[in-house]
Amino acid sequence: MTEANTQARVAINDVAPRDGLQIESRFVPTQEKIRLIDALSRTGLAKIEATSFTSPKAIPSLRDAEEVMRGIERVSGVDYVVLVPNEKGAERALACGVDEINLVLSASDSHGRANLRMTAEQSLERFANILEITKGSGVFVNASISTAFGCPFEGEVPFKRVLSITEKLLALGVQGISLCDTTGMANPRQVADLCRETLSRWPWLPVTIHLHNTRGMGLANALVAWQNGITRFDASLGGLGGCPYAPGATGNVCSEDLVHMFEQMGVGTGVDLDRLIAAAELLPAMIGHDVPGQVVKAGTSDRRYPLPETANG
Amino acid sequence: MTEANTQARVAINDVAPRDGLQIESRFVPTQEKIRLIDALSRTGLAKIEATSFTSPKAIPSLRDAEEVMRGIERVSGVDYVVLVPNEKGAERALACGVDEINLVLSASDSHGRANLRMTAEQSLERFANILEITKGSGVFVNASISTAFGCPFEGEVPFKRVLSITEKLLALGVQGISLCDTTGMANPRQVADLCRETLSRWPWLPVTIHLHNTRGMGLANALVAWQNGITRFDASLGGLGGCPYAPGATGNVCSEDLVHMFEQMGVGTGVDLDRLIAAAELLPAMIGHDVPGQVVKAGTSDRRYPLPETANG
Repeated sequence: MTEANTQARVAINDVAPRDGLQIESRFVPTQEKIRLIDALSRTGLAKIEATSFTSPKAIPSLRDAEEVMRGIERVSGVDYVVLVPNEKGAERALACGVDEINLVLSASDSHGRANLRMTAEQSLERFANILEITKGSGVFVNASISTAFGCPFEGEVPFKRVLSITEKLLALGVQGISLCDTTGMANPRQVADLCRETLSRWPWLPVTIHLHNTRGMGLANALVAWQNGITRFDASLGGLGGCPYAPGATGNVCSEDLVHMFEQMGVGTGVDLDRLIAAAELLPAMIGHDVPGQVVKAGTSDRRYPLPETANG
Repeated sequence: MTEANTQARVAINDVAPRDGLQIESRFVPTQEKIRLIDALSRTGLAKIEATSFTSPKAIPSLRDAEEVMRGIERVSGVDYVVLVPNEKGAERALACGVDEINLVLSASDSHGRANLRMTAEQSLERFANILEITKGSGVFVNASISTAFGCPFEGEVPFKRVLSITEKLLALGVQGISLCDTTGMANPRQVADLCRETLSRWPWLPVTIHLHNTRGMGLANALVAWQNGITRFDASLGGLGGCPYAPGATGNVCSEDLVHMFEQMGVGTGVDLDRLIAAAELLPAMIGHDVPGQVVKAGTSDRRYPLPETANG
């Protein structure tokens, strides 16, 4: 590679138990969720986004957040992250002893209203209250900026707006941010530019990139983020987690495909790919349908085939 | 982007009518093939690999090569390429007035024996005979180097071997080469290195990259090839063209997904994406199954959705 900013190690946050299962129509039984998270915990992943402390009415598929957090085995070296939408969620999360809280706001107000019933400014006000609750707890607070690369309703989201939201989040006391391509609209040039700009303003800031593969660009965008200094990636086992606005389209960047790409390039992920693939193989039975991940179907690039006896052109 | 070698324009060669239809079990009627190629001809693609002048016994699905070449409308500005495996195929291709002949050899001898019944040296001897036939015809002769990034039987294929084959091809009089990731084993670092090395040795040489998306890295590899000076890409409408060794895995890089990525980045392809997507929409009915392309399902990144009436977190 010709790039200067590339790092020899990256850290992966698997969001399948939260972002993936959240939109599944079938309720995955609590014991199955625990089994999935426990399998992920033994792969060497840096983080797992385990559940969401949201209202059971709003997201019934994750109504068992407490049982999940209390049922899983907490493996040393893995940070267990939960999504928290409001003050009550923060209190529930702290009571479960989570390692990290992930807040979500949308850079686009029309998306924020549709998805969270809040504009970015309203989300920021709420975050101030949540940070009052987490203060002194030692829990890391991250904020995910949805639609950072474009909004399915409004279209373009100016970089200036994303940078200004980041600035406000940091002023509130948020410790890390995630730049989210919520509906898979980002292209590599845009990813390169926003990652570079963000890291040049806040070189000390833990910046995660959250990508979707909706238009096939997931790994290309991950690659270019890495080329521009990003070392933290959200990804989802099996590529679980679709986009509600594009039926039939693939969702989140697939964890095992992302790990496979980096490991093949000689970039360490800390993840045991065989174990990760074994975890991905649990998914179809658990959720009742096939998943978009490729490596689980094709095998790794190191896979060798026996020579065919005869073969034609 | 931070790269120096990037170009503002790329050229796409759609290989679906040959590489894609070749492995379909259902014979696509000649008139349907002609309709597909004619649709592609009106999209602005630089080249179309239209058929293969191989033995009808070896590849029955392309047994209508002459009828296809005589039936299509030859649109000015589009180069019509055909695959040619031997001397007889070259004569048949010249009789049809093709613009370009594509020869194929394998960098890995075990893959060459399995797939072509020839080692690389044996292929090179045959190419010498074919070039005798094409001499003076004005037809451009390209050679595709299969398994340039790895062999499904042998594993690693050393760069030195690929570079030495390129050298021998050029000594024979071949005018362009394609570096082919035949079974989707390439990773971005490898693609960057081989493209850079090839172009630094032969800066004047038209080098095409032929990628598969078998392990999800298709567009990432295309991006990195472009970052390292490659401007010519093979791709297949709908992502048609699987890998016989990996059932269920996706095949060639999808043309409309590749065009979409480049156009979103501001890199011109000359292709009218709407027309290309319309052509891709012909495929499922034509071949009897779904295809792996993403943009055709999700729409382009510019697609806007109406605001939902109500929405939950």
